[in-house]
Amino acid sequence: MASNQLKLPTRRSDCPVACTMDLLGDKWTLLIIRDLVRGRHRYMELAQAEETIPTNLLSERLERLIECSLVERRLLLKGGKRTAYYLTDKGRSLTKVLGVIADWGLEHIEKTKLAPEILEMRARGEASKG
Amino acid sequence: MASNQLKLPTRRSDCPVACTMDLLGDKWTLLIIRDLVRGRHRYMELAQAEETIPTNLLSERLERLIECSLVERRLLLKGGKRTAYYLTDKGRSLTKVLGVIADWGLEHIEKTKLAPEILEMRARGEASKG
Repeated sequence: MASNQLKLPTRRSDCPVACTMDLLGDKWTLLIIRDLVRGRHRYMELAQAEETIPTNLLSERLERLIECSLVERRLLLKGGKRTAYYLTDKGRSLTKVLGVIADWGLEHIEKTKLAPEILEMRARGEASKG
Repeated sequence: MASNQLKLPTRRSDCPVACTMDLLGDKWTLLIIRDLVRGRHRYMELAQAEETIPTNLLSERLERLIECSLVERRLLLKGGKRTAYYLTDKGRSLTKVLGVIADWGLEHIEKTKLAPEILEMRARGEASKG
Protein backbone atom coordinates (compact mmCIF):
# COMPACT_ATOMS: atom_id res chain seq x y z
CA MET A 1 0.00 0.00 0.00
CA ALA A 2 2.72 2.46 1.03
CA SER A 3 4.48 2.40 -2.35
CA ASN A 4 1.22 3.23 -4.06
CA GLN A 5 0.53 6.29 -1.92
CA LEU A 6 0.33 9.76 -3.40
CA LYS A 7 3.33 12.04 -3.09
CA LEU A 8 2.15 15.65 -2.93
CA PRO A 9 4.46 18.15 -4.64
CA THR A 10 3.82 20.59 -1.79
CA ARG A 11 2.10 20.09 1.51
CA ARG A 12 1.16 22.36 4.38
CA SER A 13 1.60 19.82 7.15
CA ASP A 14 1.48 16.05 7.66
CA CYS A 15 -2.18 16.18 8.72
CA PRO A 16 -4.22 13.84 6.49
CA VAL A 17 -7.10 16.34 6.39
CA ALA A 18 -4.81 19.18 5.29
CA CYS A 19 -3.15 16.98 2.64
CA THR A 20 -6.51 15.75 1.31
CA MET A 21 -7.75 19.32 1.13
CA ASP A 22 -4.56 20.25 -0.75
CA LEU A 23 -5.99 17.90 -3.43
CA LEU A 24 -9.76 18.41 -3.09
CA GLY A 25 -10.16 21.70 -1.24
CA ASP A 26 -11.78 23.82 -3.92
CA LYS A 27 -15.25 24.31 -5.34
CA TRP A 28 -14.88 22.03 -8.36
CA THR A 29 -12.70 18.96 -7.92
CA LEU A 30 -15.25 16.83 -6.05
CA LEU A 31 -17.96 17.80 -8.56
CA ILE A 32 -15.81 16.47 -11.41
CA ILE A 33 -15.33 13.27 -9.41
CA ARG A 34 -19.11 13.14 -8.75
CA ASP A 35 -19.76 13.36 -12.50
CA LEU A 36 -17.21 10.65 -13.31
CA VAL A 37 -18.88 8.44 -10.67
CA ARG A 38 -22.25 8.97 -12.32
CA GLY A 39 -20.97 7.93 -15.70
CA ARG A 40 -20.06 11.15 -17.49
CA HIS A 41 -16.74 10.51 -19.15
CA ARG A 42 -16.40 12.81 -22.16
CA TYR A 43 -14.99 16.31 -21.73
CA MET A 44 -18.17 17.84 -23.15
CA GLU A 45 -20.32 15.90 -20.68
CA LEU A 46 -18.20 17.14 -17.78
CA ALA A 47 -18.37 20.69 -19.12
CA GLN A 48 -22.17 20.50 -19.05
CA ALA A 49 -22.46 20.01 -15.26
CA GLU A 50 -25.37 22.04 -13.92
CA GLU A 51 -22.94 24.16 -11.87
CA THR A 52 -21.42 25.44 -15.17
CA ILE A 53 -17.74 24.96 -14.45
CA PRO A 54 -15.52 27.37 -16.41
CA THR A 55 -13.74 25.29 -19.07
CA ASN A 56 -10.27 26.54 -18.12
CA LEU A 57 -10.88 25.28 -14.57
CA LEU A 58 -12.24 21.96 -15.85
CA SER A 59 -9.12 21.39 -17.99
CA GLU A 60 -6.79 22.40 -15.18
CA ARG A 61 -8.53 20.20 -12.58
CA LEU A 62 -8.57 17.19 -14.93
CA GLU A 63 -4.84 17.56 -15.55
CA ARG A 64 -4.20 17.74 -11.79
CA LEU A 65 -6.35 14.67 -11.17
CA ILE A 66 -4.44 12.77 -13.87
CA GLU A 67 -1.09 13.90 -12.44
CA CYS A 68 -1.95 12.49 -9.05
CA SER A 69 -3.32 9.24 -10.49
CA LEU A 70 -6.93 9.75 -9.43
CA VAL A 71 -8.16 9.98 -13.05
CA GLU A 72 -6.89 8.53 -16.31
CA ARG A 73 -7.46 9.65 -19.88
CA ARG A 74 -8.26 6.83 -22.31
CA LEU A 75 -8.71 6.66 -26.05
CA LEU A 76 -12.30 5.69 -26.82
CA LEU A 77 -11.17 3.63 -29.83
CA LYS A 78 -7.71 2.20 -30.39
CA GLY A 79 -5.99 4.39 -32.95
CA GLY A 80 -8.73 7.00 -32.67
CA LYS A 81 -8.48 10.51 -31.35
CA ARG A 82 -11.50 10.77 -29.10
CA THR A 83 -10.67 10.52 -25.42
CA ALA A 84 -12.61 10.06 -22.23
CA TYR A 85 -11.82 10.36 -18.53
CA TYR A 86 -12.17 7.55 -15.97
CA LEU A 87 -11.50 7.24 -12.27
CA THR A 88 -8.58 5.00 -11.37
CA ASP A 89 -8.97 2.59 -8.43
CA LYS A 90 -7.48 5.28 -6.21
CA GLY A 91 -9.95 7.83 -7.59
CA ARG A 92 -12.85 5.45 -7.01
CA SER A 93 -11.82 5.24 -3.36
CA LEU A 94 -13.10 8.82 -3.06
CA THR A 95 -16.66 7.53 -3.55
CA LYS A 96 -16.94 7.07 0.22
CA VAL A 97 -15.82 10.67 0.88
CA LEU A 98 -18.33 11.83 -1.73
CA GLY A 99 -21.09 9.75 -0.11
CA VAL A 100 -20.52 11.17 3.37
CA ILE A 101 -20.44 14.73 2.02
CA ALA A 102 -23.64 14.11 0.03
CA ASP A 103 -25.38 12.74 3.11
CA TRP A 104 -24.27 15.68 5.23
CA GLY A 105 -25.62 18.11 2.62
CA LEU A 106 -28.92 16.25 2.29
CA GLU A 107 -29.44 16.35 6.04
CA HIS A 108 -28.22 19.86 6.79
CA ILE A 109 -28.77 22.09 3.75
CA GLU A 110 -32.27 22.89 2.64
CA LYS A 111 -33.63 21.88 -0.75
CA THR A 112 -30.79 19.59 -1.74
CA LYS A 113 -31.43 16.37 -3.61
CA LEU A 114 -29.40 13.62 -5.20
CA ALA A 115 -29.22 13.32 -8.98
CA PRO A 116 -31.44 10.51 -10.37
CA GLU A 117 -28.36 8.55 -11.59
CA ILE A 118 -26.86 8.59 -8.07
CA LEU A 119 -30.18 7.50 -6.53
CA GLU A 120 -30.30 4.58 -8.97
CA MET A 121 -26.69 3.68 -8.20
CA ARG A 122 -27.41 3.74 -4.46
CA ALA A 123 -30.47 1.53 -5.02
CA ARG A 124 -28.19 -0.92 -6.85
CA GLY A 125 -25.61 -0.63 -4.04
CA GLU A 126 -22.98 0.89 -6.35
CA ALA A 127 -22.70 4.39 -4.87
CA SER A 128 -21.43 4.56 -1.33
CA LYS A 129 -23.68 5.96 1.34
CA GLY A 130 -21.98 7.80 4.18
CA MET B 1 -35.25 18.79 10.85
CA ALA B 2 -36.27 20.80 7.78
CA SER B 3 -36.76 24.06 9.72
CA ASN B 4 -33.27 23.73 11.15
CA GLN B 5 -31.58 23.25 7.77
CA LEU B 6 -29.09 25.74 6.42
CA LYS B 7 -30.26 28.23 3.83
CA LEU B 8 -27.36 29.12 1.55
CA PRO B 9 -27.32 32.73 0.34
CA THR B 10 -26.21 31.54 -3.09
CA ARG B 11 -25.99 28.04 -4.50
CA ARG B 12 -24.75 26.58 -7.75
CA SER B 13 -27.26 23.73 -7.95
CA ASP B 14 -29.41 21.60 -5.65
CA CYS B 15 -26.73 18.87 -5.49
CA PRO B 16 -25.85 18.20 -1.84
CA VAL B 17 -22.15 17.81 -2.72
CA ALA B 18 -22.08 21.17 -4.56
CA CYS B 19 -23.90 22.90 -1.69
CA THR B 20 -21.62 21.38 0.95
CA MET B 21 -18.58 22.45 -1.08
CA ASP B 22 -20.07 25.96 -1.29
CA LEU B 23 -19.56 25.93 2.50
CA LEU B 24 -16.41 23.82 2.93
CA GLY B 25 -14.74 23.81 -0.49
CA ASP B 26 -11.57 25.71 0.27
CA LYS B 27 -8.19 24.98 1.80
CA TRP B 28 -8.94 26.24 5.32
CA THR B 29 -12.49 25.76 6.57
CA LEU B 30 -12.18 22.06 7.46
CA LEU B 31 -8.84 22.74 9.18
CA ILE B 32 -10.52 25.29 11.46
CA ILE B 33 -13.23 22.72 12.20
CA ARG B 34 -10.51 20.10 12.86
CA ASP B 35 -8.86 22.41 15.39
CA LEU B 36 -12.17 23.17 17.13
CA VAL B 37 -12.81 19.41 17.33
CA ARG B 38 -9.42 18.89 18.97
CA GLY B 39 -10.13 21.48 21.63
CA ARG B 40 -8.54 24.68 20.33
CA HIS B 41 -11.07 27.42 21.02
CA ARG B 42 -9.26 30.74 21.36
CA TYR B 43 -8.53 32.83 18.26
CA MET B 44 -4.79 32.73 19.02
CA GLU B 45 -4.83 28.93 19.29
CA LEU B 46 -6.58 28.67 15.90
CA ALA B 47 -4.10 31.13 14.38
CA GLN B 48 -1.24 28.86 15.49
CA ALA B 49 -2.30 25.86 13.36
CA GLU B 50 0.77 24.22 11.82
CA GLU B 51 -0.50 25.14 8.35
CA THR B 52 -0.10 28.86 9.25
CA ILE B 53 -3.45 30.20 8.13
CA PRO B 54 -3.31 33.91 7.20
CA THR B 55 -5.17 35.79 9.95
CA ASN B 56 -7.45 37.64 7.51
CA LEU B 57 -8.62 34.27 6.18
CA LEU B 58 -9.06 32.88 9.69
CA SER B 59 -11.27 35.84 10.69
CA GLU B 60 -13.30 35.66 7.50
CA ARG B 61 -13.84 31.90 7.73
CA LEU B 62 -14.85 32.11 11.41
CA GLU B 63 -17.43 34.81 10.58
CA ARG B 64 -18.83 32.65 7.76
CA LEU B 65 -19.02 29.60 10.02
CA ILE B 66 -20.85 31.68 12.65
CA GLU B 67 -23.25 33.08 10.01
CA CYS B 68 -24.26 29.60 8.93
CA SER B 69 -24.60 28.36 12.53
CA LEU B 70 -21.77 25.84 12.41
CA VAL B 71 -19.72 27.76 15.00
CA GLU B 72 -20.66 30.05 17.88
CA ARG B 73 -18.63 32.72 19.64
CA ARG B 74 -18.96 32.66 23.42
CA LEU B 75 -17.69 34.93 26.18
CA LEU B 76 -15.20 33.03 28.32
CA LEU B 77 -16.46 34.80 31.47
CA LYS B 78 -19.84 36.43 31.89
CA GLY B 79 -19.32 40.18 31.66
CA GLY B 80 -15.77 39.69 30.38
CA LYS B 81 -14.37 40.48 26.98
CA ARG B 82 -12.41 37.36 26.11
CA THR B 83 -14.19 35.18 23.61
CA ALA B 84 -13.77 31.65 22.30
CA TYR B 85 -15.19 29.66 19.41
CA TYR B 86 -17.15 26.43 19.72
CA LEU B 87 -18.83 24.09 17.27
CA THR B 88 -22.61 24.08 17.45
CA ASP B 89 -24.45 20.73 17.25
CA LYS B 90 -24.71 21.27 13.50
CA GLY B 91 -20.97 22.00 13.32
CA ARG B 92 -20.18 18.89 15.35
CA SER B 93 -22.09 16.85 12.77
CA LEU B 94 -19.15 17.54 10.44
CA THR B 95 -16.94 15.31 12.61
CA LYS B 96 -18.00 12.32 10.49
CA VAL B 97 -17.04 14.12 7.25
CA LEU B 98 -13.72 15.06 8.84
CA GLY B 99 -13.13 11.44 9.94
CA VAL B 100 -13.72 9.99 6.48
CA ILE B 101 -11.45 12.60 4.89
CA ALA B 102 -8.74 11.93 7.50
CA ASP B 103 -8.96 8.19 6.85
CA TRP B 104 -8.74 8.70 3.09
CA GLY B 105 -5.64 10.86 3.52
CA LEU B 106 -4.00 8.38 5.90
CA GLU B 107 -4.55 5.55 3.43
CA HIS B 108 -3.73 7.30 0.18
CA ILE B 109 -1.24 10.12 0.82
CA GLU B 110 2.26 9.30 1.95
CA LYS B 111 3.66 10.43 5.30
CA THR B 112 0.42 11.65 6.80
CA LYS B 113 -0.38 11.10 10.45
CA LEU B 114 -3.11 12.09 12.87
CA ALA B 115 -2.43 14.66 15.57
CA PRO B 116 -1.89 13.10 19.03
CA GLU B 117 -5.08 14.76 20.39
CA ILE B 118 -7.16 13.20 17.60
CA LEU B 119 -5.56 9.78 18.19
CA GLU B 120 -6.47 10.07 21.88
CA MET B 121 -10.01 11.14 21.02
CA ARG B 122 -10.39 8.17 18.67
CA ALA B 123 -9.09 5.84 21.38
CA ARG B 124 -11.77 7.26 23.70
CA GLY B 125 -14.38 6.89 20.93
CA GLU B 126 -14.97 10.66 20.71
CA ALA B 127 -13.62 11.40 17.24
CA SER B 128 -15.46 9.72 14.39
CA LYS B 129 -13.63 7.25 12.25
CA GLY B 130 -14.66 7.04 8.62
